[in-house]
Amino acid sequence: MAGVKRYKKENPETYCLGATVSLEYLNVRPQDVTHVYLHSAFHESETKEKILMICKDHHIPCDTSDKVFSILSQKENCFVIAMIRKYRCELDPQASHVVLVNPSNSGNAGTIIRSATGFGVPNIAIIRPAVDFFDPKVIRASMGALSRVNFKYFDSFEEYLNTDGAGSRHLYPFMLDGSKLLHEVSIEKPFSLIMGNEAAGLPSSFASVGQPVRIEHGNEIDSLNLPIATSIGLYEATKGSFGSK
Amino acid sequence: MAGVKRYKKENPETYCLGATVSLEYLNVRPQDVTHVYLHSAFHESETKEKILMICKDHHIPCDTSDKVFSILSQKENCFVIAMIRKYRCELDPQASHVVLVNPSNSGNAGTIIRSATGFGVPNIAIIRPAVDFFDPKVIRASMGALSRVNFKYFDSFEEYLNTDGAGSRHLYPFMLDGSKLLHEVSIEKPFSLIMGNEAAGLPSSFASVGQPVRIEHGNEIDSLNLPIATSIGLYEATKGSFGSK
Repeated sequence: MAGVKRYKKENPETYCLGATVSLEYLNVRPQDVTHVYLHSAFHESETKEKILMICKDHHIPCDTSDKVFSILSQKENCFVIAMIRKYRCELDPQASHVVLVNPSNSGNAGTIIRSATGFGVPNIAIIRPAVDFFDPKVIRASMGALSRVNFKYFDSFEEYLNTDGAGSRHLYPFMLDGSKLLHEVSIEKPFSLIMGNEAAGLPSSFASVGQPVRIEHGNEIDSLNLPIATSIGLYEATKGSFGSK
Repeated sequence: MAGVKRYKKENPETYCLGATVSLEYLNVRPQDVTHVYLHSAFHESETKEKILMICKDHHIPCDTSDKVFSILSQKENCFVIAMIRKYRCELDPQASHVVLVNPSNSGNAGTIIRSATGFGVPNIAIIRPAVDFFDPKVIRASMGALSRVNFKYFDSFEEYLNTDGAGSRHLYPFMLDGSKLLHEVSIEKPFSLIMGNEAAGLPSSFASVGQPVRIEHGNEIDSLNLPIATSIGLYEATKGSFGSK
C-alpha cells in the first residue's frame, strides 16, 4: 500500500470503490488492475472467493489493509478497492456514439456510462472542458460499467467530427428548441447522440448540425436532467435491436 | 431564526436549499412558505428582487442570517433557504400515477419527481417503507418540482389499489422479466407505472398485476437505474400528448 493516495486527475492510477464495482473491472479489464485491497471486515462470501480467484489467475497482488480504506474511502460499506492503471481507448468509428459536450458532473457521467452500456452504445466522445471519466466517483456511479465503454476526449466538436466522428454518420444534437420531436424522428445508424452541458445545454450553433431533436415535455420544468435525456435518446434510438432476453 | 434545526423526519417543517428551489416553492405554494432566509453574500439580482416581492405580497418573513446557513446547509453556493410547513396532498384518482414501491434513495426520488412533473404525471403514490419526500435532499434533487406534485404514502400496494388506485386504471409493473417489451405495449390512460426498489426491484407477485413490462437492454448491465427506467416509462406513456412547445 506504499504510495496509496487520494485520487487526483494527474495520477497515473485510479480506483474502484466497492466489491461490485471492483468485480466489474476484474472481470472485464483484469490486465489494468494493479492491486486489490480487502477490508478486514470483508466477510467470507462467494464474491470474496471470486475476487481472490481472479487475482490469483491474473497475478494481481491482493492485500488486507484497513489503512488504504481510511485514505481512499469515506463510505462505511466499502470493503474492496481495486487500483486501476489508467488506459487509453479508441472509439469504434463505424459504431454509434454518445457525444457529451462539456459534461460537468461525475454522478451524471457515471449514470450515462451505465445507460450507454445497457443500450449497446459503448462509445462515448467527450468534448473538453469536461469531467474526468477516471474519477473514482464516475467509476462508482457507473457501477463499474466504465470498464465496458470506449471513451475519448476531444478539444472541440470539430476535432471529433474530423476524426472519429467523420464519415457517413447521422448527427442528432439534443436541444430544447430542436426542430423535430425525438419520437417523430427515425434515428438512423450509425448515429451520434449529442448532448450539451447540464446547465447550459448545447450552444445554438448546433442547430445547423445534423437533425436537432427535442424530447417533448411540459413547461413546468426547464429541462430533463442530463442522464435522463441521454437515456431516453438511447432508448428511442436502439429499441427493437436487442430481441428477447 | 429561533429554533432553526437540521431536518428530521418528525419535524413539522422542512426547507428548500438554494435560490432556484426556494423560488419554485414561493411561486407554486407560497402559502406553505413560513420564512425565507437570505445569506449576506447573496448579491442584488433579479432573483433576489423576485424573492423579496413574493415574500412581501404573501407576508412571508424574510431575514438575512448567515447562522441559519451554517446550521442547515453544507454547500458553499447556497444563498437562499425557504422554510416549508409540511402539507398533505391527495392524489387525483382520475389521473395517471407513478407508483414507487419502497424507493430508498433521496436523489433518485427527486429526479423522478422532476421527470414526472415534466411529463405531466404529477401524482405519485409511495409504498412504505420508503424515503421521506419532504427530506431537503429530495426537494433539492427535484429542483423544487416537489411543489408541483401530489404525493401520498400507503402502507401496502393493496391499500393503494383499494383507494386512490381503484377503478378502471391500467397497471404496468416494470420488471426485468416483464412479459412484454415497453415499446410494444400501448400504454392506456389513466395508467399507473409501478416501479420497484432500487436494489430489489418489484416482488415477483407483481407479475400477475396488470401488464408487466420490461425495458429492452443488453445484459452487460443488471438493470437501468430507477429514475432512468421511470423516466423512459413516462416518456413512452406520454409521447405525443404535449403538442408543440
